[in-house]
Amino acid sequence: MKRELTEIEIVAIGDELLSGATIDLNAAVIARTLEPLGLRVTRKTTVGDVPEAIAAAVETALQRAGAAITTGGLGPTQDDVTMEAVAGVFGRGVEFRKDLWQALEARWARRGRAIPESNRKQVEVPAGAEVFPNPRGTAPGLAVEDDRLGICVLLPGPPHEMENILRDSVAPYLGRRVGSGARRPFRRIVRTAGIAESAIAERVGDRLADLAVDVAFLPEVDCNDIRLTAWGENEDETSGALDEAVDRVRRILGSHIYAEEEIELAEAVGVLLRERGLTVAVAESCTAGLIAGRLTEPAGASDYLWGGMVVYDDKAKVELLGVSEDTLARHGAVSEETVREMAEGACRRSGADAVIAVTGIAGPTGGTDEKPVGTVWLAVRLGASTVTALRHYPGTRDMVRMRAAQGGLDLLRRTVLEELR
Amino acid sequence: MKRELTEIEIVAIGDELLSGATIDLNAAVIARTLEPLGLRVTRKTTVGDVPEAIAAAVETALQRAGAAITTGGLGPTQDDVTMEAVAGVFGRGVEFRKDLWQALEARWARRGRAIPESNRKQVEVPAGAEVFPNPRGTAPGLAVEDDRLGICVLLPGPPHEMENILRDSVAPYLGRRVGSGARRPFRRIVRTAGIAESAIAERVGDRLADLAVDVAFLPEVDCNDIRLTAWGENEDETSGALDEAVDRVRRILGSHIYAEEEIELAEAVGVLLRERGLTVAVAESCTAGLIAGRLTEPAGASDYLWGGMVVYDDKAKVELLGVSEDTLARHGAVSEETVREMAEGACRRSGADAVIAVTGIAGPTGGTDEKPVGTVWLAVRLGASTVTALRHYPGTRDMVRMRAAQGGLDLLRRTVLEELR
Repeated sequence: MKRELTEIEIVAIGDELLSGATIDLNAAVIARTLEPLGLRVTRKTTVGDVPEAIAAAVETALQRAGAAITTGGLGPTQDDVTMEAVAGVFGRGVEFRKDLWQALEARWARRGRAIPESNRKQVEVPAGAEVFPNPRGTAPGLAVEDDRLGICVLLPGPPHEMENILRDSVAPYLGRRVGSGARRPFRRIVRTAGIAESAIAERVGDRLADLAVDVAFLPEVDCNDIRLTAWGENEDETSGALDEAVDRVRRILGSHIYAEEEIELAEAVGVLLRERGLTVAVAESCTAGLIAGRLTEPAGASDYLWGGMVVYDDKAKVELLGVSEDTLARHGAVSEETVREMAEGACRRSGADAVIAVTGIAGPTGGTDEKPVGTVWLAVRLGASTVTALRHYPGTRDMVRMRAAQGGLDLLRRTVLEELR
Repeated sequence: MKRELTEIEIVAIGDELLSGATIDLNAAVIARTLEPLGLRVTRKTTVGDVPEAIAAAVETALQRAGAAITTGGLGPTQDDVTMEAVAGVFGRGVEFRKDLWQALEARWARRGRAIPESNRKQVEVPAGAEVFPNPRGTAPGLAVEDDRLGICVLLPGPPHEMENILRDSVAPYLGRRVGSGARRPFRRIVRTAGIAESAIAERVGDRLADLAVDVAFLPEVDCNDIRLTAWGENEDETSGALDEAVDRVRRILGSHIYAEEEIELAEAVGVLLRERGLTVAVAESCTAGLIAGRLTEPAGASDYLWGGMVVYDDKAKVELLGVSEDTLARHGAVSEETVREMAEGACRRSGADAVIAVTGIAGPTGGTDEKPVGTVWLAVRLGASTVTALRHYPGTRDMVRMRAAQGGLDLLRRTVLEELR
């Protein structure tokens, strides 16, 4: 009889993970994929390519949780020892799987090549293992199971191989072993711009305390998410509380909310521009292309982005945007007057419906008492009017630049929304 | 008597690490900081904010390695339970440290604010712990030690706080406990552009096999590193083999090598331009600001960057760069003719000494049989001549854009170097 699973542990394998040469991104993907099934990751152990360490980690993981997923160590080299180690834990040997080998041979033959002999090792799998196909690589996914120890799933380390097998094979396989009555988390996400995490936390305060909803504030450098979680057996059971929670957050935070799904601000701005049939041009000094870069991350940005001008040197501000030398001399490159002329010049030059302009002091040098590092002037031109805003962003050069780019995008979003009211 | 350390384990603490909401970047920084001291990270355990799980993980880590570093769980909220858990492992209680509290009060007072009472919890530290100052936050770093169990270092989870304490206090503290005769790794790094990992591996082959040097190929999306490691008690013992290895790699890879230190290609290009007293402007279509963005990551980019033009829409190519409508109609926006006119137009407009121009199909749509996704034309104008190059980059939209940006920077680097010969 199979146990009903509620917990699982991850065992990540590879010297490169311990030495710091590689950052493990697989564990987060696994946790986020399994959580909606009602399966919680309760521990992760990272070990090197050492058979005894792998075996010990898998064994204690199975003792605690009854289920484990390993990542890595399924390659063709001598370093790759996960299969033998896990087979040992289950008191089994490995067996050469002729069917898998022939399938690999056929795949390579279709590309007109012969498969290297070294790959044979990758189809010497723990005896009796269930095999999951790997469309993107030569190492199969595997599951070994017995009634006494539980289930151990083995996945290859390269993320693009791992993710496919996890999603297409492992999630359904493990999902069948989770009890139907298991409580699972159902989530909503609310994404904000232009408001600090502490301000969000203060305003939301305990105003959701009467709902059976967990509230998490997730700060990033340039935006802050609110994650709302309700636990239940199914969607219906939780949607009432979640709807009410989202509704209250909406009323509390208003136009600071730019999306109720996991999309970037630039993408939300793109969607808004496309809906309204507006085009945009950018005029960037300290952000130097970051806003244009973000706006073009989603495909199809040519629907709304005309292009832009990176005016890092003051000569470029004059030549490309027609900012007057007198304005630069009198008020400086980081001033309301300059950012306004930048926006107006970019509008004339491009003929775009809207313009975002940014000029600021990203640091670490260049600050003064009057205009310290982090001082940024933003402008948005829409139709015949220009709005400007002064910001003081904290953080390193990188952070100031990222925040300034986000600030410019958010000012455009708000200006377009205002315009529509 | 203190033991001589050679190994250490990491215990990363936090529900958000297990749920996949946060990726742990601390462990890699710790491993890379301690390795040069002769201290190897042999295991990492990630647990949630559960006192029993933290205590068990620390205890077994100390049993195996004699030393552990925890990250996370030192905050002011109820979730933060690392101090109590570790104190318990050492059979101690926690003690309120009045000296630390007064120092925090003074720090807040200087900013004209009163410290919240909730922060008191952060100075209730394991009895007898050594305290390391945290200039960037309220949680101190700590070390608890006894002869029987070994050493446990506690660090806060936020990376910018953790890194400071690690570098300034913990590394020296642990370094004194490593035996003077310990063999340590000494490393050299060689960074390349414009050559695939497999091509590097093939060319280098076993041509370093006679040296006592480990060779690792570290592929990234847009560059490939070669890491050379020799083990010894001190620098002198290893420098002969390392010098010889670097020398051979130089001869094998020639101008594909852009740096022998850990700097980005854009920074190396910036250094080269500054040395030669050259200015540069960019004309970007599919990369849409990425090259300008990269060139301005280091401070001081105004020494060489004039600015640039993001010409995403063909109208921008015509208006900003003077690309002829006839060329666009006859050859298309992704063509040698167009990229050449982009470079020449950017040169006229900016008066910069050098120009990088890029136009391509980043995908996922827009490809044709003749010009599939990944087709990118690059041009560099230097002085009175323009060089062009056709590239076919594999990967997703993001990867094609990153590779195209890197390709443009590398073409400029090579053109400047050629020019000098």
